[in-house]
Amino acid sequence: MNEPDADLLSLNTATVRQQWTLPQIIAGCARHGIRGISPWRDQMAAAGPKDAALRLRDAGLTVTGYCRGGMFPAVDREDRRAARDDNRRAVDEALAVGARCLILVVGGLPKQRNGSVESKDLAGAREMVRDGIGDLLGYARGAGMPLAIEPLHPMYAADRACVNTMEHANDLCDELGPGVGIAVDVYHVWWDPHLKREIERAGSASPSRLLAYHICDWLVPTTDLLTDRGMMGDGVVDLRLIRSWMEASGYRGFHEVEIFSANNWWKRDPDEVLSTCKVRHRECS
Amino acid sequence: MNEPDADLLSLNTATVRQQWTLPQIIAGCARHGIRGISPWRDQMAAAGPKDAALRLRDAGLTVTGYCRGGMFPAVDREDRRAARDDNRRAVDEALAVGARCLILVVGGLPKQRNGSVESKDLAGAREMVRDGIGDLLGYARGAGMPLAIEPLHPMYAADRACVNTMEHANDLCDELGPGVGIAVDVYHVWWDPHLKREIERAGSASPSRLLAYHICDWLVPTTDLLTDRGMMGDGVVDLRLIRSWMEASGYRGFHEVEIFSANNWWKRDPDEVLSTCKVRHRECS
Repeated sequence: MNEPDADLLSLNTATVRQQWTLPQIIAGCARHGIRGISPWRDQMAAAGPKDAALRLRDAGLTVTGYCRGGMFPAVDREDRRAARDDNRRAVDEALAVGARCLILVVGGLPKQRNGSVESKDLAGAREMVRDGIGDLLGYARGAGMPLAIEPLHPMYAADRACVNTMEHANDLCDELGPGVGIAVDVYHVWWDPHLKREIERAGSASPSRLLAYHICDWLVPTTDLLTDRGMMGDGVVDLRLIRSWMEASGYRGFHEVEIFSANNWWKRDPDEVLSTCKVRHRECS
Repeated sequence: MNEPDADLLSLNTATVRQQWTLPQIIAGCARHGIRGISPWRDQMAAAGPKDAALRLRDAGLTVTGYCRGGMFPAVDREDRRAARDDNRRAVDEALAVGARCLILVVGGLPKQRNGSVESKDLAGAREMVRDGIGDLLGYARGAGMPLAIEPLHPMYAADRACVNTMEHANDLCDELGPGVGIAVDVYHVWWDPHLKREIERAGSASPSRLLAYHICDWLVPTTDLLTDRGMMGDGVVDLRLIRSWMEASGYRGFHEVEIFSANNWWKRDPDEVLSTCKVRHRECS
């Protein structure tokens, strides 16, 4: 299979978040010739949103996604309203940086304010997610900001996202209509026997639902549920195969590297991390 | 929803494997009035298979499953033959203890003998699983030993089992015909949006494919991918709801507690573990 276009590499800023501030990451991307970036809200806030937006523009970076909105399930009306307001702000922020989409991590079971899970009603949480996206969609459509549902690995169903398959995300898109699509992150969906079918389904929608493509690798063994993602090529995911499915389904967008790695990549010289991303993007993705 | 029949509690011996030998576990079940048990091969071997079988019979225990066969994907013919021979021995052992089924953990990507993953061909591994079960089925049918495919959580797709949903297991059963069914373990399948549908599908097959039902709980947070399962009631799984789906689909078998818990239940007095299993089975399952 063919090598990917090096110009399509994008850096999700979580990949070096322990080492660098957002302005440092932006400068790093420019230095390494990385053309795409996907920043997180907390980093934008810490850097000062206006200054950060200016730096992103000056560096000529494409903002391939904005991380993130979501977390819709809530225990009561007050929490639901807070989530709604926060998500609208996320849409505004995504617009301000010219992001191609707002990534949605939809949330898991409703939690109390102390963080403990309040309910075991998974089907109910999924309804709250549908309703929450539907509500936000009215706002996001008006603003012209595409929403990208990111199905998360089933191991996050309880606490991060109860949309765990591409099929479920596609079903939500069918139900909710235009303005919402999907962010395909290989870490979350590589295991799914219906992955190819559901990528094709997303790509054949009009307009295409394939709004973002995130890459990293699944390590064996994986030592932590959250922060032990692998660099492309270090794990077991057939990244070339999945990219070929994305491309055959019409995806021409960026390949965004997003690696949470407390004991490895977050401990390394971030310039080394970016160099490695470039090499592994070319050789293994 | 109704309380479960206390007589349907079964103990998967992994739950106290760090504290007790198999003879001690058998004695413990008798002492606590637990009527079902599901032993592991290594414990049977350590106890002496004939002596262990005698103890199981003397204690009047129903052997609700035998753990385990499987691990079909292999890098070469030699490994494949070794897996085949070992699986036939597992069928023989399951027969010798009068087990209701042989649990199959089907294996993930093919591994080299040093344990490292040899191939990223997930679809190919799934074909090896289908062929491996098909081959074993000829032997198991002749022996009258039902095979129970246990779909494992997607986080084990690479290294333990590449059958990760009830739908996939049902599809395999459709393809392979009589003699193979499914072990439903809530830990692995609780997140699945199609769980109810696929339990009904398994129950409506003739004969029913619902061969075993394993319970524990999913903790939030989960701190280890392998050994941080929760006691029923300590996590987020709606066990009563899932049991109601099993029962509505005709399942009348045991409820087998299987908890891998390096930092909690494996460190406790095993008599306390068994008492707690009984209480939580009644109150939370």
